[in-house]
Amino acid sequence: MLAPPSRISKHYLALCGGVGGAKLALGFAHVLSPDQLTIIVNTGDDFEHLGLSICPDIDTVSYTLAGLVQPDQGWGRSDESFVALDIVKRLGGETWFQLGDKDIGLHLMRSMLLDQGLSLSAITAQITRRLGIVHEIAPMTDDIVRTVLDTAAGPLPFQRYFVKARCEPVITGIRYLGAEQARPSAALNRALADPDLSGVFICPSNPYLSIDPILALANVRKMLASTSAPVIAVAPIVGGRAIKGPAIKIMRELAIEPSAAAVAAYYADFLDGYIVDAADRVTLPGMQVIASQIVMSTLADKVALARRCLAFSNELAEQP
Amino acid sequence: MLAPPSRISKHYLALCGGVGGAKLALGFAHVLSPDQLTIIVNTGDDFEHLGLSICPDIDTVSYTLAGLVQPDQGWGRSDESFVALDIVKRLGGETWFQLGDKDIGLHLMRSMLLDQGLSLSAITAQITRRLGIVHEIAPMTDDIVRTVLDTAAGPLPFQRYFVKARCEPVITGIRYLGAEQARPSAALNRALADPDLSGVFICPSNPYLSIDPILALANVRKMLASTSAPVIAVAPIVGGRAIKGPAIKIMRELAIEPSAAAVAAYYADFLDGYIVDAADRVTLPGMQVIASQIVMSTLADKVALARRCLAFSNELAEQP
Repeated sequence: MLAPPSRISKHYLALCGGVGGAKLALGFAHVLSPDQLTIIVNTGDDFEHLGLSICPDIDTVSYTLAGLVQPDQGWGRSDESFVALDIVKRLGGETWFQLGDKDIGLHLMRSMLLDQGLSLSAITAQITRRLGIVHEIAPMTDDIVRTVLDTAAGPLPFQRYFVKARCEPVITGIRYLGAEQARPSAALNRALADPDLSGVFICPSNPYLSIDPILALANVRKMLASTSAPVIAVAPIVGGRAIKGPAIKIMRELAIEPSAAAVAAYYADFLDGYIVDAADRVTLPGMQVIASQIVMSTLADKVALARRCLAFSNELAEQP
Repeated sequence: MLAPPSRISKHYLALCGGVGGAKLALGFAHVLSPDQLTIIVNTGDDFEHLGLSICPDIDTVSYTLAGLVQPDQGWGRSDESFVALDIVKRLGGETWFQLGDKDIGLHLMRSMLLDQGLSLSAITAQITRRLGIVHEIAPMTDDIVRTVLDTAAGPLPFQRYFVKARCEPVITGIRYLGAEQARPSAALNRALADPDLSGVFICPSNPYLSIDPILALANVRKMLASTSAPVIAVAPIVGGRAIKGPAIKIMRELAIEPSAAAVAAYYADFLDGYIVDAADRVTLPGMQVIASQIVMSTLADKVALARRCLAFSNELAEQP
């Protein structure tokens, strides 16, 4: 029996940040065809360093989907060398941000194309295609958005806080400079306006550092609330602990209860479904919650969670 | 017997471009103390490529004096790797300009410091000091000067002509964009105004591509003509052939007789002495010409030519 035509045209949108989001994005890429999936990546972490335009989350997702990522750390390239950075160090430059030679090659390419006036979307499309990636990876916006952490010691640009200061300063607030004026990228607008949109997935990335910059773009949060497609998040917190990164510390500092439930509450205005670990109990009005294995160690874990997300979205779509 | 005080305070200025000039500069660095020598380098070849600010002549002189230069080609670093450029190539970028990983490390550092607002002079001082160089290497100017070759196929920026087009297009003219408005660097002004200036040496670099941009800076040619110190050039042409590079081809295309004599005539308004190979005969009014071994293959050749330059300058200074 042939699959019904409606199934063929289903399209899904995944919103993600770096390492955690990239894992689930890889799962989706294994179970969805290129025309069924749009991966939208946070660019609030992007920065200019040593004259290079660096997009850490886009690169983490790209390296992960291309099978090039350093497997132990989940970001950066495997088999990297650090010849150029060693010279920077010898010449008295800053080396707190690890830049391998292969990574620098990519940043040089992107910086040059940006200088030539190409959009980050066009550049990301070119680079991912050249890396052999067949699924669409696009920035959340082609405009400049910069995440800034307000701390007791003053404001810190994201990477200064995250990498150089190792998330140690106490946060008093988070701002996404430029987000309100930034237009969602064509890929994000297209996916959200697609009549075949059948599910939106908030990947298990840090809600405040990775997802919120996307939500802060003009109209995105409103479009998520109004789309007829189910919007589903995968909890980035398991049993009161962040799977990776400083989410718990940040939540405490912002006086938010550090739990999977608090993340769901933060997304409550647009979230239809929430996938949590069996250790977590979440109940929120108007939101269906299911338990699943959400820690993704192996490729099989990533594929299984992606399949679970898709099945959950189909279940929600079939409900009246 | 103590040396007379006047000898101690003698100061010399060397003007140079890349490979050929760097060889003689190395010779001077071996026979003069750091407080006796200022090396001023052409920046007309500088360009922005892959988002990097690249100063080929400054780097060639720096690598040469630091003992880091690739000995066979006379530019670039020895023991280079090309990991980053290989990625640029895979991503569809331009690779006509060879950039090794070590070289890129230096360019990243310079680009970052330029972005921070430091002058090229300050940056060059920092980088050369970090490379272990004790003699002063300074750009001809901190302002932007760009050599452009007018060709039958239209204007070409220097590196596009020199590297990408391998000097093949026929030249109809050479322009040094910005030179007239560019102020000589502090080091160049200081050396030319130094009452202890005892000699100026035009190194055997291409007269039109490497030396002329320096001469084109506001007042430099006039200051060379009026300085009481002897101004001496080493011929870049031996027996009608350029020691290296396209000087002969360029002279023919510009309808200049391709000879050591024509170069001296080009410098006639400020030149007091000219050092040529024994194969070349040059006679010009108001200019003393001596023959010497001017092809520098070994370090001993470089040191010997530097000593010959200094002795010649002393001889000229002692003449009434």
